[in-house]
Amino acid sequence: MIKFALFGAGFIGKIHGANIAKHPQAELAYIYDVNTSAADQLAAQLGSKVASSPEEIWAADVDAVLIASSTNTHADLLNAALQASKPIYCEKPIDLDINRVKDVVQRAGQTDLPILIGFSRRFDANHLGVRHALQNGDIGKLEMMHITSRGPQPPPLSYVKVSGGQLRDQTIHFFDMLRWLAGEDPVEVYATGAALIDPAIGEAGDVDTSMIILKLASGALCHIDCSRRADYGYDERVEVFGSKGLAISDRKPRREVTLYQGGKAISDSLHPGWFERMEPTFYQALDSFIRAVQGEKTEYPTLWDGLMARMIAEAAVDSLKTNQPVKITYWSPEKINN
Amino acid sequence: MIKFALFGAGFIGKIHGANIAKHPQAELAYIYDVNTSAADQLAAQLGSKVASSPEEIWAADVDAVLIASSTNTHADLLNAALQASKPIYCEKPIDLDINRVKDVVQRAGQTDLPILIGFSRRFDANHLGVRHALQNGDIGKLEMMHITSRGPQPPPLSYVKVSGGQLRDQTIHFFDMLRWLAGEDPVEVYATGAALIDPAIGEAGDVDTSMIILKLASGALCHIDCSRRADYGYDERVEVFGSKGLAISDRKPRREVTLYQGGKAISDSLHPGWFERMEPTFYQALDSFIRAVQGEKTEYPTLWDGLMARMIAEAAVDSLKTNQPVKITYWSPEKINN
Amino acid sequence: MIKFALFGAGFIGKIHGANIAKHPQAELAYIYDVNTSAADQLAAQLGSKVASSPEEIWAADVDAVLIASSTNTHADLLNAALQASKPIYCEKPIDLDINRVKDVVQRAGQTDLPILIGFSRRFDANHLGVRHALQNGDIGKLEMMHITSRGPQPPPLSYVKVSGGQLRDQTIHFFDMLRWLAGEDPVEVYATGAALIDPAIGEAGDVDTSMIILKLASGALCHIDCSRRADYGYDERVEVFGSKGLAISDRKPRREVTLYQGGKAISDSLHPGWFERMEPTFYQALDSFIRAVQGEKTEYPTLWDGLMARMIAEAAVDSLKTNQPVKITYWSPEKINN
Amino acid sequence: MIKFALFGAGFIGKIHGANIAKHPQAELAYIYDVNTSAADQLAAQLGSKVASSPEEIWAADVDAVLIASSTNTHADLLNAALQASKPIYCEKPIDLDINRVKDVVQRAGQTDLPILIGFSRRFDANHLGVRHALQNGDIGKLEMMHITSRGPQPPPLSYVKVSGGQLRDQTIHFFDMLRWLAGEDPVEVYATGAALIDPAIGEAGDVDTSMIILKLASGALCHIDCSRRADYGYDERVEVFGSKGLAISDRKPRREVTLYQGGKAISDSLHPGWFERMEPTFYQALDSFIRAVQGEKTEYPTLWDGLMARMIAEAAVDSLKTNQPVKITYWSPEKINN
Repeated sequence: MIKFALFGAGFIGKIHGANIAKHPQAELAYIYDVNTSAADQLAAQLGSKVASSPEEIWAADVDAVLIASSTNTHADLLNAALQASKPIYCEKPIDLDINRVKDVVQRAGQTDLPILIGFSRRFDANHLGVRHALQNGDIGKLEMMHITSRGPQPPPLSYVKVSGGQLRDQTIHFFDMLRWLAGEDPVEVYATGAALIDPAIGEAGDVDTSMIILKLASGALCHIDCSRRADYGYDERVEVFGSKGLAISDRKPRREVTLYQGGKAISDSLHPGWFERMEPTFYQALDSFIRAVQGEKTEYPTLWDGLMARMIAEAAVDSLKTNQPVKITYWSPEKINN
Repeated sequence: MIKFALFGAGFIGKIHGANIAKHPQAELAYIYDVNTSAADQLAAQLGSKVASSPEEIWAADVDAVLIASSTNTHADLLNAALQASKPIYCEKPIDLDINRVKDVVQRAGQTDLPILIGFSRRFDANHLGVRHALQNGDIGKLEMMHITSRGPQPPPLSYVKVSGGQLRDQTIHFFDMLRWLAGEDPVEVYATGAALIDPAIGEAGDVDTSMIILKLASGALCHIDCSRRADYGYDERVEVFGSKGLAISDRKPRREVTLYQGGKAISDSLHPGWFERMEPTFYQALDSFIRAVQGEKTEYPTLWDGLMARMIAEAAVDSLKTNQPVKITYWSPEKINN
Repeated sequence: MIKFALFGAGFIGKIHGANIAKHPQAELAYIYDVNTSAADQLAAQLGSKVASSPEEIWAADVDAVLIASSTNTHADLLNAALQASKPIYCEKPIDLDINRVKDVVQRAGQTDLPILIGFSRRFDANHLGVRHALQNGDIGKLEMMHITSRGPQPPPLSYVKVSGGQLRDQTIHFFDMLRWLAGEDPVEVYATGAALIDPAIGEAGDVDTSMIILKLASGALCHIDCSRRADYGYDERVEVFGSKGLAISDRKPRREVTLYQGGKAISDSLHPGWFERMEPTFYQALDSFIRAVQGEKTEYPTLWDGLMARMIAEAAVDSLKTNQPVKITYWSPEKINN
Repeated sequence: MIKFALFGAGFIGKIHGANIAKHPQAELAYIYDVNTSAADQLAAQLGSKVASSPEEIWAADVDAVLIASSTNTHADLLNAALQASKPIYCEKPIDLDINRVKDVVQRAGQTDLPILIGFSRRFDANHLGVRHALQNGDIGKLEMMHITSRGPQPPPLSYVKVSGGQLRDQTIHFFDMLRWLAGEDPVEVYATGAALIDPAIGEAGDVDTSMIILKLASGALCHIDCSRRADYGYDERVEVFGSKGLAISDRKPRREVTLYQGGKAISDSLHPGWFERMEPTFYQALDSFIRAVQGEKTEYPTLWDGLMARMIAEAAVDSLKTNQPVKITYWSPEKINN
């Protein structure tokens, strides 16, 4: 049994907490949240103890930590967990300051601890199907990739302002997905976008609608489109096209119910939000992490993957500002184990 | 070039006439219709001569006849064409009086002339795909078959009264399809139905909604459902289920356009009528007939097939009346070539 | 919190136990199984006590019982629970002897206790969608219904022999579904079937492939087909056709991944078994039961529904044996509350 | 009856010739081709006269001309037809030299003759459905558009060399489609591409795989991807995304046949080539042209549309060469009627 300490008892912390409680090889030992009443409530529901401080957790007998607290606490908690030699499952992003990200990566590089960064889409059954087709040679050599992520509603303006912008906040998932699917890194990016949904997002210096083309070293082309709003639910799709065929991770309808009436066939549309669409991936990610903590060799998005996606996002933001294609420069630390 | 004489310049005669005119190996030489102005008009449009009587056609230099006149003329025209040794494409049904059908079959049995009875669904690309799957062994041994035919609107009551009833008029197509797909004949039938759409159909002694179960000699079961009305277009589907899998001839949408709006995905429904759905089969049937006239060995529904479907329909009508399963008795003439 | 006692720690008992443990308003207090090591193991996993006898449970402070033990224990446990005035969630079937079923119904009729019989398909999101369309008037007046249930593999012959036969064991779910969807009871049934998958099933006096037509009092027709095996996964579908349209609870693919390669578009097929397909319904059924126990008015399949489905099954078995349509006679006890 | 003269008896000339012959309001009077035996053969088949020179046609009593000869003859024939005041249906492209295109446009601008340029995709039922949804307000304000065109096989290298390149030859159809769907013109284009299918295409200075982002004046973004090869058939799709929803012109399968076997659902893929996919559009385009010649106000792609698409293509080629986004400059002649 892997004893977990959970940081954060908010929306995503509750999800992770319930998954830990449900997992047959895991036990939720501690919850910490600066909002103590949130921590108390979740602990009561899940049968966990409440930690009065992070320090209590570092001193306690826990086997792994799950960091689901607010973004500005991630880097400190990562460093503390590294210091305490605890395997880490950390929600994205690592930090909005890329230098702090690099610093964490450098520290982590000295260890062999499992560190999973929450790009949980890597565990989606449909996306995994596309990756399997690619790795299996079913579509031959990769030539084009499309990734779509739209909706469901723009976040509050207050969030937009501290989010780092659409490319660092929403699109970054797909910069990671592109690397994960293609098995290679993009070398150049052209990003364009506009605030078409809400002018206030534009006034805040951000975009809500964007299209991005990335070139891979192999010459393959990748297109990503992101919108902060889709009236018809959360729409995420991937297609990979190659010399031998096409593989698609398609729309996932809510139900398989169709009504034929007059001239129309009316079916259910998509899940209302990204969470309903992606919910099963959180348990799968946790399971992969737990097995890694137990010593099994599993695949998961690492701290290094988190940094790589972020470096692509930085180049994309640069392109968005300059309206020029930008070569992506990847930082190479001297020594990294992890 | 095969020179055709066409009997009938009504709705279905026009279709056949245009197809003959379009076919590179065919020529429309004569049109005959008791409605001479209909004949004149179609002849002008298609560049054909008008025959003033059927006799003019039998005396003329024509290679084949296409009988698309009203049902009560079919048997006489078939007999005359047999007498004149002309290959025949005849619309279904052969005759409402089964004894006249048997009589024609017996006469035709003395000849080797190609005679195609218009069960044109045998030429539908989707249904052919299911048949190919069956013949190919893709679904293994046949165990269950479903055939659905619904809509679009009930025919006029005047037609209902002379049609022979839903089973002889609508369902007969699917009695033929069942034989054609299964490659064997049913041995027993249970038919039930009701006038659910229009009580006047019930008062006329007919049903407008029916379900039929047929048992094949192999033990396989076949279900057919027919409705005279489908609010959402003409809905015809087939599925065959076997020891190794399932093959489906599915709904054919009018277009591949989908609108995602709010909670719904709204697509086009089916073709409005049976004719729009089945239109391409008429040309394919004609082509198969023309190649047969030219001496090629092609597959098409024969006069014998027409009789067989009719004998199933008679047993089904008997079952509908008695609410009992009925063994199907097939008439065996002494000698039949065709 | 509703304290539950669970009877049965086998396959389906484990499912129910885990759902009780997961439900925020429920607590799994006791588990009883004649196989004490199975009970011990499940109790350890779910944090429950083990009861050494059913009597211990009747004497204990429990709010509801869930009966998931073997079929031959159901009637006795139902009676004991009624005696102890405990609300009951009981897996189907109630008993293979219909007189024992009637006896239980009569006893239960004296009480107002919530009693849910495990026709859990009533909680399937797709089937609920079709029911909603019907109740909402979206398809107008019901005229035809089709229900398909196929696969995945024939049960062991030992099970076939004690199952009561395909109609009482598999098809009974769909006799219930038909009533639940149509909102009325069938008046006549014609059933036919054969042992097409395994002759040994035929030698055991049962069928593995069946087609059934039922007539409703309104004249609407219903067709059910059942097969004990489908090579391509578990295939369950419903369609309801009416005066204004068609509603379908369609195939549910495992994933939305499609590979276009050469001339083919290759997608995932269905869930491998009925359990993977139906899994979410068990939690939904439990939730409905718990809310009923808490006094809320919820919809669920009652003991009376269990009896009704069984009376249809008896008539269907009679029809299967005699190859005649059979009028369905429903037993009317003098007074039934439940 | 509109009397047509047809220039060109090659692949596409045959299509147009047969459509003219089939159209009830049209008559094919003359065919001209420098390959006189091709002209003779087609004329014999369709019952037309053969013209021994273009001059014979200009002097003859014809109501309209259809130019389907090789690209390098288009401008001269357009000019001669303008001189002779004949309505013109001309296959694309107008000319590879944009100055010659402008010259033709300027001359045509002095007249009111119907001139249709063969962007026949504007007549595709699926694409029309998407346009209708946009115009109807079904998706609200346009924000993003995607157009995909892939396959089926790269053209011969000899053709690639004289084609003007992938953007002027293949993508130009979609530059037109974008304008037609959006109802506004793009202002900036970024194009990137590579020779991923055949290095010889790269050596010839062209690409075979390209991705293009266009910005509309409204801020909406459009992405086009083109590949010269798709192993699985010709894949053309459009999707438009707006403030209220999404409309899709989806893949058009060859047939609606699906085989469920083991873990897979295997359906038909796409039409093998662009022609099979687009065939019905040619007749629709002709019909729209004929009705325009008869004085009806119909919608069709004009000479001006041909020039506009070409000006976008020129900017895209510029972007492809410089790897920079390029502002699109549209040439404004002084006076244009047509």
